[in-house]
Amino acid sequence: MRWSKALIPTQKETPADAVAPSHVFLLRAGMVRQLGAGAYTYLPLGFRVLNKVIKIIREEMEAAGASELLMPALQPVELWKQSGRYETFGELLMQLTISSNQTIALGPTHEEVITDLVRDLVKSYRQLPITLYQIQTKFRDEPRPRFGILRTREFLMKDAYSFDADVEQLSASYDAMYEAYCRIFDRCGIPYVIVEAESGPIGGDSSHEFMVPSSTGEDVVVQCPSCDYAANRERAEIGEAAATLSLPDSTTPFEEVVTPGRRTIQEVCTFLKVPESTSAKLLVFLADDKPVAVLIRGDHEANEAKVRRAFGASTLVAADAATVEKVTGAPMGFLGPIAIKIPLAIDRSVAAMPHVVVGANAVDLHLKGVVPGRDFPLDRVVDLRNAAEGDPCPRCGATMIVKQGIEVGHVFKLGTKYSKAMGATFLDDKGAEIPLIMGCYGIGVNRIVAAAVEAGHDDNGIVWPLPIAPYEALIVPLQPQNPAVLEAAESLEKQFTEAGIDVLMDDREQRPGVKFKDADLIGIPLRIVISERGLKEGTIEVKWRTDAAAHQVPAATAGEAILAELEAIRKGLAATCVERRIARAAAKGQ
Amino acid sequence: MRWSKALIPTQKETPADAVAPSHVFLLRAGMVRQLGAGAYTYLPLGFRVLNKVIKIIREEMEAAGASELLMPALQPVELWKQSGRYETFGELLMQLTISSNQTIALGPTHEEVITDLVRDLVKSYRQLPITLYQIQTKFRDEPRPRFGILRTREFLMKDAYSFDADVEQLSASYDAMYEAYCRIFDRCGIPYVIVEAESGPIGGDSSHEFMVPSSTGEDVVVQCPSCDYAANRERAEIGEAAATLSLPDSTTPFEEVVTPGRRTIQEVCTFLKVPESTSAKLLVFLADDKPVAVLIRGDHEANEAKVRRAFGASTLVAADAATVEKVTGAPMGFLGPIAIKIPLAIDRSVAAMPHVVVGANAVDLHLKGVVPGRDFPLDRVVDLRNAAEGDPCPRCGATMIVKQGIEVGHVFKLGTKYSKAMGATFLDDKGAEIPLIMGCYGIGVNRIVAAAVEAGHDDNGIVWPLPIAPYEALIVPLQPQNPAVLEAAESLEKQFTEAGIDVLMDDREQRPGVKFKDADLIGIPLRIVISERGLKEGTIEVKWRTDAAAHQVPAATAGEAILAELEAIRKGLAATCVERRIARAAAKGQ
Repeated sequence: MRWSKALIPTQKETPADAVAPSHVFLLRAGMVRQLGAGAYTYLPLGFRVLNKVIKIIREEMEAAGASELLMPALQPVELWKQSGRYETFGELLMQLTISSNQTIALGPTHEEVITDLVRDLVKSYRQLPITLYQIQTKFRDEPRPRFGILRTREFLMKDAYSFDADVEQLSASYDAMYEAYCRIFDRCGIPYVIVEAESGPIGGDSSHEFMVPSSTGEDVVVQCPSCDYAANRERAEIGEAAATLSLPDSTTPFEEVVTPGRRTIQEVCTFLKVPESTSAKLLVFLADDKPVAVLIRGDHEANEAKVRRAFGASTLVAADAATVEKVTGAPMGFLGPIAIKIPLAIDRSVAAMPHVVVGANAVDLHLKGVVPGRDFPLDRVVDLRNAAEGDPCPRCGATMIVKQGIEVGHVFKLGTKYSKAMGATFLDDKGAEIPLIMGCYGIGVNRIVAAAVEAGHDDNGIVWPLPIAPYEALIVPLQPQNPAVLEAAESLEKQFTEAGIDVLMDDREQRPGVKFKDADLIGIPLRIVISERGLKEGTIEVKWRTDAAAHQVPAATAGEAILAELEAIRKGLAATCVERRIARAAAKGQ
Repeated sequence: MRWSKALIPTQKETPADAVAPSHVFLLRAGMVRQLGAGAYTYLPLGFRVLNKVIKIIREEMEAAGASELLMPALQPVELWKQSGRYETFGELLMQLTISSNQTIALGPTHEEVITDLVRDLVKSYRQLPITLYQIQTKFRDEPRPRFGILRTREFLMKDAYSFDADVEQLSASYDAMYEAYCRIFDRCGIPYVIVEAESGPIGGDSSHEFMVPSSTGEDVVVQCPSCDYAANRERAEIGEAAATLSLPDSTTPFEEVVTPGRRTIQEVCTFLKVPESTSAKLLVFLADDKPVAVLIRGDHEANEAKVRRAFGASTLVAADAATVEKVTGAPMGFLGPIAIKIPLAIDRSVAAMPHVVVGANAVDLHLKGVVPGRDFPLDRVVDLRNAAEGDPCPRCGATMIVKQGIEVGHVFKLGTKYSKAMGATFLDDKGAEIPLIMGCYGIGVNRIVAAAVEAGHDDNGIVWPLPIAPYEALIVPLQPQNPAVLEAAESLEKQFTEAGIDVLMDDREQRPGVKFKDADLIGIPLRIVISERGLKEGTIEVKWRTDAAAHQVPAATAGEAILAELEAIRKGLAATCVERRIARAAAKGQ
């Protein structure tokens, strides 16, 4: 392909509203262009990356035995009402009324549609197990699209759904997808961490996310550097070490302090000139519609999944101010654990504090020097908060670290959540009608593109992994108007194309500086420069985007030499994928 | 792939509401499934066909020098207002209001988005010519989706757009797409007719449609069996032969007849007991907002494009009853050409009539025996009607035939319609800022699938063309529980897969009759039956879906024998594509 035909609108300036490296460089390299908030056009270079990712995904899904289909974006809202997610999705679900007066949802995901399909078409255990997938456009009414193509209103997703007859089959289907995901991300050449994820209140006992570490990422990963424990923040457990129960160390009674209008932890602690870590906040939730309270250290965050589990509930919502006042008798902002009338759970970190600042359950009043276990009972002490940097690992006790990450994949044992709600059953080998057991598996296709740039860039531009680069090689004739230079370039182009190498030729009549800058910006792995001077000296310049310096190869045998370099790199990448697979199998065997 | 893993829900019964063969067989063969009105899921077999069509399209678009990109479905309605099509598209344009209170259109096509893109990114003649394309989902609020996947609310389209500096460049871009389309349909193995199509009032002097003849088709094609003239009905010209001007052949004056409440041609002619072909209807239009009238034979249909051109107008709409009465002084249903006050054009067929029944421009009155040229002037006699079966060819005068067809492709010289409306200009080689010259080129991807079935089926099911069949070969072990049978089947499967043949194996434990019926229904070109009896006799049965009878090949060398048959067929298909290309080039050279 010639640069002049490909529409590659590179730009020098950093776009005004772009901060994330993937956003900045994908725009500057002319790979994507914003049409509206959260809606991006993939220009030819960007589209090629997307398409290479799709090809890898497809190959690995087929290898894992999944069958591809394609479901519509236009979905009857009735299916969402059947599954019970019409309310849950809320505003995120784009809806429109069409001419027939029907209300149609634009699919944000396809659990409902596939369950509807399978409940009609799969009737017997003989048809199981089966895994179906599609690569399809999803729509979500993101209130705040951001970071370029990372969070948009329209995006490509690979979504797969497994249907199994029993939990053993589900485990096998889940493992096959888990392994396929590893291979996909390995082959795409992006770094990733697999973390345990929250699996939600209904169905399913296992869920993993595939995260690419990045400061742009909106997900938070808690990781142990000593063992292989990693989880997203919602899921991460906290080791016991930091939370040994304390005994009262003081006989001094607590003291009432007037805190006029100070309601937040920050306001109260600033006013009292104490660190937030010496205070505790009492939060009220409705667990299965019943009011409950939790006490969390001032500088910690409550983890709703842990709170929900602590009370054995299947739903949990934060109580509003009116409810709080009604059930505690005290105004929001001044709540405390002493003499509270509703069920109370205490986070382990609070139980370990010698004394604590809490609300007095009365307007403009807080209490100092309250001793846990002395001034309020420690009947229900559990892990209720999000893990934070420095917390001990739940497996080995080492100090954990916290990182941001981009979620590129998610595998999830759904169990019977949808099949029960929507009546998707089959006849088992004994003739009993039972609900299908499901798993779902998603990959954010566009996010792989963004994550690859987040993980692979320098000050000058993108550094694409070879397997998903828009082109593998860029041929730069410095003086394309010189017939000898052009001929040498075209001869290499032909040789590469015949060898199955994706090659782009910068045929523009531009200054060398412009061409070199653009080459770095668009990040093609292999740059080959053909110049009048080089040809005179009998050499062609080769530079890998990952190398600091270029090297020369003899012009006469340049094609073979460069193809050999490429082949060596390809082999190295393939070997790495195999090594990782073997390592995973070994780890699993342990 | 194994049948048991692929989800192929064949069914014996013809679905209640399906009439078109493609609708019936795609449902019965388990290739598609309706989710809602005009929204279909492509099940694994159907998806494979779709994907093979996409692959062929992509290869030919790349070969023609077009660059692929991907534009969003979510489009700002502002762009539609800029182009002036917000009103034109009307109800077909699906719209929704998102959380940011913006109104978003779901793209029914992408002229607006691509013009917006290119006006920002292409600034100089040096960047031209360029052709961009995508394969993307379109949304249209079809009031009456029908014929299965032929007319739906959500469909895949390959849409390409060319941008050129002058009309010569446009011609070259147009020809490249025209030729690519021929190759695509040739390679897909579907029969097609290329017809001249109406190119609309603004911009562009050329437009062709690619039609697959089918009684299910909603388009009407007028074709000359003697020369190569073919056009869609809106565009088709009519030869002069049928319309020699007549001289008054009667001295009898016309006669007033009372026709109480008879307004339509049918009512009047039935009442007067005369054929509709002896009457004429006067129709009133607003041409560029000015009232005009045309006189058309009672059994003919006015052609709005021809009427518009007859009055040199760029817009044309039918006048409503109130306007008609206001501008003619006569009520709708009783209009006639005598003493009409607004500009009048007369269709050639009317001018050729010896006498005619027309309205009297007064309530409940018509006139009999009116002589064209005597009783009303024949100042403006032109071709104003749709061609019909039996009309003479405009090129050679032979009698034309009328066929129904499915439009699978459309190439269109747009000219400057969008670039002018949306301000998409470039600097030409003299530094002048002029509007880009555009072409647009569409292929209905799903329609190719449907058209292939319309053109390729028998009573038993689908007969896929080899290049787009979901699988090329179907291996049917009749007794898969017999290890020798299964082993022979698996050995062939392996050999085929290694040779790059798409192969499906019917591994179900079903009666031979069920397997044979399903094989015919899903229409895989090559069926290979392995049975206990055959193996005992040392033979394997081979049957082409297009052949009436099966034949036997020696089991020992079955793989090689069958691969040789396949290769011969493939070569034959490729040769046909080449022959057609040579024939087109020769025809063009004439």
